[in-house]
Amino acid sequence: MKQKSFADMRCSIARSLEVIGPWWSFLIIRDAFMGVTRFKDFERSLGIAKNTLSNRLKLLVENGLLDKVTDPGGSKYAAYHLTEKGRDLFPVLVAITQWGDKWAVHEDGPSFEIIDKRTDQSIPPLALLGGDGKPLPEDEIGVKRASN
Amino acid sequence: MKQKSFADMRCSIARSLEVIGPWWSFLIIRDAFMGVTRFKDFERSLGIAKNTLSNRLKLLVENGLLDKVTDPGGSKYAAYHLTEKGRDLFPVLVAITQWGDKWAVHEDGPSFEIIDKRTDQSIPPLALLGGDGKPLPEDEIGVKRASN
Repeated sequence: MKQKSFADMRCSIARSLEVIGPWWSFLIIRDAFMGVTRFKDFERSLGIAKNTLSNRLKLLVENGLLDKVTDPGGSKYAAYHLTEKGRDLFPVLVAITQWGDKWAVHEDGPSFEIIDKRTDQSIPPLALLGGDGKPLPEDEIGVKRASN
Repeated sequence: MKQKSFADMRCSIARSLEVIGPWWSFLIIRDAFMGVTRFKDFERSLGIAKNTLSNRLKLLVENGLLDKVTDPGGSKYAAYHLTEKGRDLFPVLVAITQWGDKWAVHEDGPSFEIIDKRTDQSIPPLALLGGDGKPLPEDEIGVKRASN
């Protein structure tokens, strides 16, 4: 199926999905958060074809999620680093991870944990807060459509 | 490109992406959170072909994110409701929305806001908390790979 572009939609979710690209791309973002920077390391981690990976990385750079930089060590290989826009996806990564750990976990357990380094323990679920900075009760969460 | 299955991967992110299905499916989840339950209303909202929508809904039911129920009103049309597993995707929805509102917002502004009903104001960004329940400083967040 040819995927319809979400770019002309007004919904921020649809627009985000357009910018992030296919799911595959989200695994590249995940790896970048884990410290992967080199093409060959993404390739090894993801096990996808070189040309596919190359296209995905190109799109992530074009969409401003990754910066492609010459290796300061002087090697001929480029390094890919998350931009601020890319790093801002961290809560999305955490939200998906926490959902997956609960609902789709592998029989051997999760492959990684997101931890509070001070305690070495998994962080608690992302908190939905109200305007007062306190946890927002589920029945006080609303969705308001734009009026304009 | 034929998408490789993520189901055999151990990473909770990859496994979640497998269960949620293609991005399109996430827009169905979004609509379900907005109160859409009927096939024709998903169709109108998403503007996709009937057979595509039908396949996506079927997969979401099979994967346990939606329940398909006979309309208690006695109409011949089924209603689709989020299961607990589906409703648990709310933080993912919020995280993507907040990212999109910041980095991919439409020129007319977002199409909806997630609000604290008590104040009618947008909720603040999802909070990453430490084990002590307080906001976790960025440099105290770590990722620990499984040792087994």
